[in-house]
Amino acid sequence: MTDYRTLRVALLGAGAVGSQVADLLLKHGDELADRAGAKLELAGIAVRNLDSKRDADLPRELFTTDAETLIVGSDIVIELMGGIEPARTQVLHAIASGADVVTANKALLATHGSEVFEAADQVGAEVYYEAAAAGAIPIIRPLRDSLAGDRVVRIMGIVNGTTNYILDRMDTEGADFADVLAQAQALGYAEADPTADVEGYDAAQKAAILASLAFHTTVPLDAVHREGITSVDAAMIESARHAGYVIKLLAVCERLTAEDGSESISVRVYPALVERTHPLASVHGANNAVFVQAEAAGDLMFYGAGAGGVQTASAVLGDVVSAARRHIAGGVGVGESTRANLPAVPIGHVITRYQITLEVDDKPGVLATVAGILSEGRVSIATVEQTVIEADQTTQTGGSARLVIGTHKAREQDLSETVERLAASGVVERVVSVLRVEGN
Amino acid sequence: MTDYRTLRVALLGAGAVGSQVADLLLKHGDELADRAGAKLELAGIAVRNLDSKRDADLPRELFTTDAETLIVGSDIVIELMGGIEPARTQVLHAIASGADVVTANKALLATHGSEVFEAADQVGAEVYYEAAAAGAIPIIRPLRDSLAGDRVVRIMGIVNGTTNYILDRMDTEGADFADVLAQAQALGYAEADPTADVEGYDAAQKAAILASLAFHTTVPLDAVHREGITSVDAAMIESARHAGYVIKLLAVCERLTAEDGSESISVRVYPALVERTHPLASVHGANNAVFVQAEAAGDLMFYGAGAGGVQTASAVLGDVVSAARRHIAGGVGVGESTRANLPAVPIGHVITRYQITLEVDDKPGVLATVAGILSEGRVSIATVEQTVIEADQTTQTGGSARLVIGTHKAREQDLSETVERLAASGVVERVVSVLRVEGN
Repeated sequence: MTDYRTLRVALLGAGAVGSQVADLLLKHGDELADRAGAKLELAGIAVRNLDSKRDADLPRELFTTDAETLIVGSDIVIELMGGIEPARTQVLHAIASGADVVTANKALLATHGSEVFEAADQVGAEVYYEAAAAGAIPIIRPLRDSLAGDRVVRIMGIVNGTTNYILDRMDTEGADFADVLAQAQALGYAEADPTADVEGYDAAQKAAILASLAFHTTVPLDAVHREGITSVDAAMIESARHAGYVIKLLAVCERLTAEDGSESISVRVYPALVERTHPLASVHGANNAVFVQAEAAGDLMFYGAGAGGVQTASAVLGDVVSAARRHIAGGVGVGESTRANLPAVPIGHVITRYQITLEVDDKPGVLATVAGILSEGRVSIATVEQTVIEADQTTQTGGSARLVIGTHKAREQDLSETVERLAASGVVERVVSVLRVEGN
Repeated sequence: MTDYRTLRVALLGAGAVGSQVADLLLKHGDELADRAGAKLELAGIAVRNLDSKRDADLPRELFTTDAETLIVGSDIVIELMGGIEPARTQVLHAIASGADVVTANKALLATHGSEVFEAADQVGAEVYYEAAAAGAIPIIRPLRDSLAGDRVVRIMGIVNGTTNYILDRMDTEGADFADVLAQAQALGYAEADPTADVEGYDAAQKAAILASLAFHTTVPLDAVHREGITSVDAAMIESARHAGYVIKLLAVCERLTAEDGSESISVRVYPALVERTHPLASVHGANNAVFVQAEAAGDLMFYGAGAGGVQTASAVLGDVVSAARRHIAGGVGVGESTRANLPAVPIGHVITRYQITLEVDDKPGVLATVAGILSEGRVSIATVEQTVIEADQTTQTGGSARLVIGTHKAREQDLSETVERLAASGVVERVVSVLRVEGN
């Protein structure tokens, strides 16, 4: 074997991903050395509790509870603790100690990314985070490097495996949200506290990271509009199917150009209708996919496992090899660029298509009233489908009808004001659902 | 605007891709400067004929027929001439002059890649070639960097848009090869001389490049087994559909592990049966997709436009920005690694599943004879379907039957010898087709 220089690697965290990273580092050491041009020596693994059970059989002597000391003198620090603290402190400590950092911590990057990247810039360190955006799917380098000469127009991502699993089973089985969630929890696809997934917090963090990269702009987490999937029910999914759609929790990152040529961005996470023929519609189970539209490259899609210990470990180790190559050869690393710094617009400015489902009185003139309110509100109707759902058998009047209205593109603010006026109009008994349609 | 250092960029070739690259470089100069950290000055465009018509409106004074002089003093040389010579000479000249090279020239890299990369290594230059493997799809960086810590087991790629367009239309319309090819030529999807595409030469070059990267191994073009799609007819496609398959021209790059643990690779291009539920089956029209299976990352897929001037220009400009960043910050670039250098095995060693279609005499005992020959040849039968295709109406004997046999995994050499024995057995009238089944 070639006589390589040795780089000292410190691992923080030995959960599902950390255990696999340590295992692969130890098992494939020679091969990784050939690829990296340096021997990667796992100097230690910092954990909270030395006696916790691990997913891989790792040498006991590598474990320590003293992360601070382990970090000092390390060339590469892999942070897989998750959460904000103590991860933030340790990452800043690693950067200050002169190490490059590899992290899968989307929460940290989405909330303290600027602080971390600036600290790294100041000392010439690099922060790698391929595993933070969509698990094992290589999306960071394509966005940062391969598309660096292009202009990303829009990203639509299925970036949360738990919610895609739930929505996919609801779609396949006609089951309701609560039942599928319970099954997913039993099978380990969803956490005991599923809030981060089902309310869209996890997807919003990833959306902020993807939008930052795609638009060369700092995107704070609170600029991301977020809605979860808890209000999606079997009837909505059935109605979507009937109209040729499937419901997916999408992270949408969009470049908007005003009439005067000025640009802004919109970053939003919500359950949306996607046409069944769209490539994103065939992303099943807990898989993730990121669909990218760029001015020159056209439509691209990146597909793979969104989570999982060993899958995510692959992305982490790719970053470790990149960091090692940089240590050996010096020079440029991640190449963050936030020089565009486009403003993020609120959700009200977004322009998309909608599907509005209403329960209305089944009597003459109702459709005319509804159409009039939509027209006044500058919401143009593309399709209407009316079904009688309940009628008084004696008089044949006074029953209800369901109206499913597909709109042309409309401004979110116009649309929501119009829906409020519909609700107050006297002819609408209930606004059943309002869903955005994405991906024309 | 920030006061950036200026890098001198020379462009060789102004065809479909070159014109778009020049246009985008001129149009998006400021934005590219922000991303690259350097102003990219298009110093000139070398062409054979100054008066040729171009796809974009470019300043006349940029054009020159003197590539040699243009190259001298350039920081980045973009080679988009295609073909081996004079591209090879100019690329080596550029490297010797101290420039980094960006190229989309798959023919050059597949045949003279080692020479080019070694010349670059010797002077510390870099060669970037994202556009050489699958048009606009970012596949080089994911393979080289993102998966650097993983082990790629297998790649299955639809890497030629023309043949995918032809096979897709044959599948959709039930049309025959010659008719669809003629249409494709009329529409500009296929060249007047379609040999490079339909005989699999283009796909084989891309397969060599992908396998080199994935397996860290020099893969000479003559190590790639190559078959084209000219023998695929409407009946084969119909029969594939009936069995739940679609026929795709696949570039398969596979890592093989022998019982003693020694490793080798197989690189091959041929029309293969792909299950209709496989993600590759839904790649339509002239699109490309690369399906990657890695030990840790699992299944990944990269999808997008495989060709097209402006799409490929996106990949070229991504490389130009990478080269510029390296010029500014110094250090590591492409990071070629061929340290594994696994041997490539001939096609006879490949193990896969097959679908064999035979016309046999429709008389008792034939199936037993066929089954016996397969068994002797160590080819195990998974499924058999027999259809009577022609019978003597008077005697009800002496007609023919069609046997469609699906095999379990078999060694290609065993299989082809067995098929020869079947053809010579006396009971087989005609071997209609033998197709590999890929991607379980």
